[in-house]
This record gives sequence, C-alpha cells and structure tokens, in this order.
Amino acid sequence: MNQNNAIELYDTTLRDGTQGEKINLSVQDKLLIAEKLDEFGVDYIEGGWPSSNPKDEEFFRKALDLKLKNARVSAFGSTARKPGSIADDPNLTGLLRSQTPAITIFGKTWKAHSAVGLGLTDEENAELIFESVRHLKEEGREVLFDAEHFFDGYKDNPAFALKMLQAAEEAGAERLVLCDTNGGTLPHEIYDIITQISSSTSVPLGIHTHNDGDLAVANALSALRAGATHVQGTINGIGERCGNANLISIIPNVVLKMNGRFRHKLQLNQLTALSKFVYEILNLPPDNRAPFVGRSAFAHKGGIHVSAVLKESSLYEHIDPKSVGNRQRVLVSELSGQSNIRYKARELGIALPEDNAALFRTMVQRIKKLEHEGYQFDVAEASFELLLRHEMGEFQPFFEVLESKVHIESGKNREAVDQAVMKVEVNDEIELTAADGDGPVNALDKALRKALRRFYPEIRNMSLVDYKVRVLEEKKGTSAKVRVLIESSDKENTWSTVGVSTNIIDASLQALSDSINYHLFNCRTKPLETLREATPC
Amino acid sequence: MNQNNAIELYDTTLRDGTQGEKINLSVQDKLLIAEKLDEFGVDYIEGGWPSSNPKDEEFFRKALDLKLKNARVSAFGSTARKPGSIADDPNLTGLLRSQTPAITIFGKTWKAHSAVGLGLTDEENAELIFESVRHLKEEGREVLFDAEHFFDGYKDNPAFALKMLQAAEEAGAERLVLCDTNGGTLPHEIYDIITQISSSTSVPLGIHTHNDGDLAVANALSALRAGATHVQGTINGIGERCGNANLISIIPNVVLKMNGRFRHKLQLNQLTALSKFVYEILNLPPDNRAPFVGRSAFAHKGGIHVSAVLKESSLYEHIDPKSVGNRQRVLVSELSGQSNIRYKARELGIALPEDNAALFRTMVQRIKKLEHEGYQFDVAEASFELLLRHEMGEFQPFFEVLESKVHIESGKNREAVDQAVMKVEVNDEIELTAADGDGPVNALDKALRKALRRFYPEIRNMSLVDYKVRVLEEKKGTSAKVRVLIESSDKENTWSTVGVSTNIIDASLQALSDSINYHLFNCRTKPLETLREATPC
Repeated sequence: MNQNNAIELYDTTLRDGTQGEKINLSVQDKLLIAEKLDEFGVDYIEGGWPSSNPKDEEFFRKALDLKLKNARVSAFGSTARKPGSIADDPNLTGLLRSQTPAITIFGKTWKAHSAVGLGLTDEENAELIFESVRHLKEEGREVLFDAEHFFDGYKDNPAFALKMLQAAEEAGAERLVLCDTNGGTLPHEIYDIITQISSSTSVPLGIHTHNDGDLAVANALSALRAGATHVQGTINGIGERCGNANLISIIPNVVLKMNGRFRHKLQLNQLTALSKFVYEILNLPPDNRAPFVGRSAFAHKGGIHVSAVLKESSLYEHIDPKSVGNRQRVLVSELSGQSNIRYKARELGIALPEDNAALFRTMVQRIKKLEHEGYQFDVAEASFELLLRHEMGEFQPFFEVLESKVHIESGKNREAVDQAVMKVEVNDEIELTAADGDGPVNALDKALRKALRRFYPEIRNMSLVDYKVRVLEEKKGTSAKVRVLIESSDKENTWSTVGVSTNIIDASLQALSDSINYHLFNCRTKPLETLREATPC
Repeated sequence: MNQNNAIELYDTTLRDGTQGEKINLSVQDKLLIAEKLDEFGVDYIEGGWPSSNPKDEEFFRKALDLKLKNARVSAFGSTARKPGSIADDPNLTGLLRSQTPAITIFGKTWKAHSAVGLGLTDEENAELIFESVRHLKEEGREVLFDAEHFFDGYKDNPAFALKMLQAAEEAGAERLVLCDTNGGTLPHEIYDIITQISSSTSVPLGIHTHNDGDLAVANALSALRAGATHVQGTINGIGERCGNANLISIIPNVVLKMNGRFRHKLQLNQLTALSKFVYEILNLPPDNRAPFVGRSAFAHKGGIHVSAVLKESSLYEHIDPKSVGNRQRVLVSELSGQSNIRYKARELGIALPEDNAALFRTMVQRIKKLEHEGYQFDVAEASFELLLRHEMGEFQPFFEVLESKVHIESGKNREAVDQAVMKVEVNDEIELTAADGDGPVNALDKALRKALRRFYPEIRNMSLVDYKVRVLEEKKGTSAKVRVLIESSDKENTWSTVGVSTNIIDASLQALSDSINYHLFNCRTKPLETLREATPC
C-alpha cells in the first residue's frame, strides 16, 4: 500500500446501494444518511442518478442546503449515448443540473459492451468518453471516471481497456475508478492488473468492487495494496445482487491492520453506530454476524473458551471491539456451560447464589428448558434478568393477568373492531378493563396499561418502541409456535423481553407483561446506586 | 495453486458451525446434514467434539450406521491437557470412543496461549502435541492436526509455531491444518506465510479461516494458491462470531475461476440446494444476498440494465447461474421500470395488454402504490400474478369474505380459546362457519376452508407450509403495520402470497384468501398446457 498518499473514501450507499433487493430510501432518508456519512469523515457521497428518477433529482436539490464538513456530493450517470450530441445529451444535462461539485460518469471499458451493447467502434467509444468528460470539466466540475467492467474488459482486451482510460485522462478526469462491475474478479488478479497499469497513467486510481464472488472487501484491499488511493463501497455492503464492497469492513481493515491513512480523520469508534443507523433507516434487521460491527462479532459461546476469553481478551479477539464501537458479549445459550450464565449475571449486576449449588443447578435447568421451547434470552436480557431474580426469590410479578379476551371483527363495508378485555389482579384487588386498539396486540397493550395505571402510575413513562414476531417451526403453517420480542424504552434506557406460544396474542402478552414488570422492578426495587445506568421512574 | 494435487474438502458445519449464535442442531439434524454433505462430495465431515456434550457422542454412535460414499467422519478435540497422562486423558479417550476413522486434534501454536493460557514451557507444549498425535496414531486413526492460532502465532514467534508443527509431523499427523482462529489475518499475509513454511514440511497443509475481517473466503483461496491442498469451512459460513469460511463460496471460486480440482467430483449444480437444505434444517431464513446461491445473486433491478441483461447474460453475470443450481431473476420493485414488469409477466406466462398502453400504465401505478403500502411482490409471486390477471379482467375472486370475527380467551387455570367465525359469499350463496384453532390465525384458516369446502372440494389438496410475519415501521410498537407472507403447497408446487395491514389477523386473511384463490384459479381456469409446471387439482 502506498503509505504516502491518504486514501479517499467514496460512499455510494445512496446510489448503488439502493439497487439492492428490498432497499428503498426516501429523499428524507437519503439526506439523513448523507449527514451521517459526512460526520463520520467520508470524502465523497454519491447521491443518485439524477436523470434516472425524480426522487434523485429532489435529493440533489435539497442536498444543496446540507452543511457538510468533510464530504463532496457527487452525481452519477453515464457518458453521452451518441458521439457528436454532447451538449444536448439528456444524461449529461441532468448531471449538470444537479449542481454537485463532483460528477461521476461511467463509460464502457470492456470491448464487448461497447461493440455488442452499443454498436460502437473503438474510436467512437473513446470519443464518447473523451467528449463527455471534457464537457463536464468545461462546466467546472470535478470529474471521476468509472471504468465499467474494467477488469473483465482488461482480461479480454487490455489495449481497448487502457485506451478508454487514456481518453478519460486526456479529457481531464480527476480519478480513474476501476470497476469490477460483475463482481467476479479474484483478489490476486486485481493486484496484478493494477500493478501492470499503474505506470501508464498519472491520474489517481480508484477501486469499485461487488461481492458476487464473496471477495468484494478482499478485492478492494488488494487494489489499495497495489497502489489505488480511492475506494468505493456502501455502508453494510448493500447493493445489487450480492451487494457492493462493504465500507464497514474495509475501513477498520485499512486503519487497524494495514496501517493505512484516510484523507479525513474518521470517527472509527462510531463505526458500529453508523452501520446500525443505516440499517435502521433502511428498516432492515442488522446482520448479527457482520464483521467488526455485528452483535455476534465479539460474542463468545461455549464454556471452556469463555473462561479463557475472560482471562485475556486480546488472545481471542482480532481487534479491540471498543475501537469500532462494538462490545464483547458472552452468549447465554443451550450450548453454554454454567460459566456463561455466571458471566451474564455478573454483566447484569446480579449476585448469584454462589453458596447454593442446588439452586444454581435448578436455574440452569430451567433456562435450558425454556430455550428448548423457543425462548431466546440472548436477545431478551430483561426477561432473562427477571427469570434469574425470580428463581432467586428477589422478584415477584407486580400483577397477574387472570383473564384476557380479544375480539376482532372485520368485514365488507364496516369499521374494523379490535377490542381487548383484561382481568388483572394487583395486591388482591381485581381490575377489569377493556380497550379498543389498532390491531389486537395494540388493544391488549392498551387494556393492560389501563388496568395497571391506578396501581403503578410510573408505567406512563415507558413505551413500546419495537415489536417483532418470529415464527418458530415454520413448517407447521398457521398453527406454528411464535416468538414475540418487544423492545421498550423510558427515554433513557431500552430493554427487551420475550414471549413464546402457539398463539401470537398470548406470546405478546407474556412479552408485554415482562416489559412492564421489568420497568416496575427497576423503579420500585433496585436501589438507584445498583443500576448500571439510571432509570428514571 | 498447485494444479497437480486435488484439494480436499473438510466440512465443520456440524462442529464449528454450531458454535454460531442462534445455531442449534439435533442429532437427527446432524445425521441428515452429514448424508447430504457426503452426497455432494465432501471428503471429511467433522461431526462434533465428543467429550464436550452428550449430543455429539450420540451423533458419533449413530453415524457408524451411515452409508457414506465419499466422506470420512472426523471427531474433534484438543490435545491432552497435561504431559505424561496421555492414556487417561478424558479428551483423547472420548475421541477414540467415537470410533471415527479420522480424528482432528488442535494444539497451541501461539506461544502466548501455551505460556499464559496453559502455563507450559515450549518443550512441554511440543511434547503434548507429539504424545497426543502419537497416541491416536497408535490406535490406528488418521490424525489431522489443527494448528490453533497459527498465523497470529507465527507472526509473533515463527520458531515456536514451526516447532509445534514439527512435533505433530514427527508423531505422524497426516495433515497440518493452519488455523486463523481469531479471523483477523489478511490474505497476503496468509499467502506469504504459507509460501515461507511450505518447504519446511512434507505433510500436506490445510487451511481453516474465520470471517472476523470479512476475508475468510479470500484467506482460504489465498492459502490454496500458496500450495495448501485441504480446505476447511462450513456450509453458509455459519460459525462462532462472524462465522467460518463459507464453503458455498469457496467451492465455485476454486472450480469455476481458479481451475482447481477437488478430490471427489462435486455436484456443483446442487450447490444452491445444499445451501438451502442447511438453512432449512437450521430453521434460519436463507441469506438472499449470499454469493452464488442467494435468491438475489443473479437478480437484476433497474430498467435500463435489465433490458441489456436480457440481451446477453454473460456480459452481466460473473458465472452462469445454472452451474451452481441458481437462476436469473428480474425484480419487480418500486425502482423498476415497466420493462421489469413485462419481463416478470413473461416469466409467469401472462400475456400483457401490449396494445393497451393506458391499461398497462394503470397496472404499473397500482403495483407501485401497493408496494408503497408494504406489499412485497418479489417474494409473493402468486399474489402478483392474481393482481395482474385481475387488472386484465382474467381473474375474479372465487369467494368474498363478508365478515370475520376472531375471539381469543386465555386466563389463569383455564383452557385457551381461539375461535373464528367467518361469513363468506360464493356465487350468491352465503356460508357462515366457525372453527376453533391453535392460535387465531389457525382458527381463521380452518373456518375459511370449512366455508369453502362445499363449493371447492379441491382445496383439500393444498396446505400451508410456511407462515411469516414481518413488522413494518417497527418503531410504532404494537400498532405497527405487519406484512404476512404465506407459502402454500399442493405437493407438486409451492406458491407465495402476501397480505398487509395494521392488524395481523387481517393481513393473514388477505394472504390466505390469495393463496386459496391462486390454487382455485390454477385448477379451474388455466388450461393445463399453459401451466409451466402441472398443478394437480
């Protein structure tokens, strides 16, 4: 890797990323992500393809008002379609209209694409590239040239591929970005090709890879080692087919392992937060197994290994999780030994009955049994804590649901009805309430809160922020068991609870009850100083 | 890559794979996967760690009865704990008791692990390795030595790491498997280290990598290029933390791109099926973005690009999807142009109104609107087909749900009740039915079928095989919109339908209705010759 030159970080989450299946971003979403990328220290933000859809045009209009500290916004599009009509080309016109300081245009560098796809001679293709780049340069923009299908093209016909790079260079392109558009090139091929061509141009080289061979990150690193100084990718590797090169993986590899330097100082310890933020905006569940930032990335399972990890983390973790804003976790799971449960309890600040082996064994058995039934405590730590404290006699539920009834009606031409009736016992008093809701679970939630409000006014301070249903044993069709995970919050803290049943309403009620109990337990029982983080009640 | 030597495929899905978060396999699951791996052409199947848990011991007992054609089963465990007590070591005894033809034992090759972790001198550690391997060899087993933390160890202290390899070699180990246990090594480091050490041993070298740097596949390929002839990994890359090297990606890269040869002829066109099979057994949703085998791996989105792909696939796909048992797809999505919808319709055998531009525009608008509301047609093609045919006047629903009521009761010390009442209109006749079920959705399903049975006896031949709920706008808590996806089957075919509502019962009812309508439409309306695959009715 060229240690003298800082590496430029070019993000295309907002453009190439949105080509991915199930990926949709509104203009507002895109603006939020752009601000976050700038804050993190990205150099270029590719915002969209202005002439491809009105949403992208609106983004560029609104992006003019963003106050960016580090990044330049770039618009993406193709070279002109026909030589000789540059000034009227709708694509180039759209790019200029976007008013971005930088413009990235792609041109064909694989002969077959130019000859078969567009029916152009080599000269015509070179001219298109030259004229398009020059036109944009004349309008005072910074121009980055994306050499589409470069590696496949170079392997097929190196002279053709180089001729096209040269055309872009002669027209004044500021960067030549070599694209592995189909994503099938191998890391050593990338290294060899860049090494071969780097003497033939004085323009800084960039790399843009896709993950079709499961090698996008390796390919990008390979290019940087061979002398490229500009790397393109997306947050979380989203993108068409198997995705783009994942900047979330490239960045820490470059900084922590390859001794590389980016142009701006990056907020590396915000890497996990950045990844989560983008998943959140995309309304996609995060990938727990994601390198560096995944929930499981520093999660240890298995009794023997865990005790060793606790002794000396650096022998078992390739980097310090804190450096990327992640953290070490020990999994409470079926495979776990008792040491995992002890570790988890310590993490949660629960003193286990060290002197009562029989009680501890009973607890382990009970946890294993529940996990076997489908309860998943590693993602529902509040339920896990209540369970442990209950077994140890520290916690008793604040209420008991004696009866619950849900009535749902819908039909042609009439108002839908979702009504819950709940009979709850608190301190020997019985409260019967009913509530209408927006869906049965919402009705249930409202009825339960209504019943409890008189006894526990502090439940007003908490609310549900997330609700997830997973069908277990999916092959059983509609009678399958479901697991409901609920995330609740009181503004300061969030906590997760779980319920399992063949009945979604029943599973929801379990998770709801746990959530409320957890909040009340924290407010009423725990002395404030034992709380890891203060919980306002 | 050494072209003379065939590469050995060593699968550790059943052992290292099960260390992954949320991964659980029963003994029966493991046996099913082992048979499938053997069929595919894997050389070694690592079945578990016999002394770590009783489940693994049971697996090895039952694995003795498997009729394997290609693979040898291997048991995994550590070297003895203390020098001088080899014969009584519980771990080695457990390994021998498993009666597997091959045994894989791991030993420390990073000095810090041996010195700090176990408190051993260099000589003691070498002796442990030597004695353990020799003991297993004397019992007539094939012994593979896993050099734990080899790359970190070699970078730290090459002499120590090599001394340990030598101890294993001298004791007769048949393979020296170099492990990147913490998963943090870079591909060029792997290449350089293996190139450096390969002359110092005559034992075939293996590679075992983890994905903590997002480089597990690249690292494995790097080792094979440097001369390793044995590669370890798991199906779908499952495994602890970020997972193991993904054999599903390594295999096609080696065969299709590196001109490599495996010891057994692999059923490469079964690769996608193998990946799905393992996901199915794990009860995990497949990764749509997975390279080579993912549902999105050859999925094209975006109007312009799609028309080019249809012209000449090989210019846009790094390999032929059929070679790995996958297929090309065109996505119907918000981003799609009209050409995507046309392509999809053609794929489904639907003749669009080519001569009626206004009608086609209305259809496109309607699809966009529904997608905006949360309907997802790329995973619910049956609903999409009904929608198109309905817009074109070819399909009318076979029934209308006039009213639906669901009543759910549960409570302390009493039987839970899930009851649905349904009023359905068919050909001007009204049918009122009620059914009890196992959960509200199941009750609804039963009541609907009961109402329709008299009119459409052929619904007996179909059943629901999968039911998935996704909460949209998760931040809205329990009143959020949900999307229900239902997969149905009539033994010959399966089809997917979708429903969206803030009410899970209502969303389920939409998807159920679509599913039944689709079945009836195929049975009653489509002439058999127009069906892509015959649907028995």
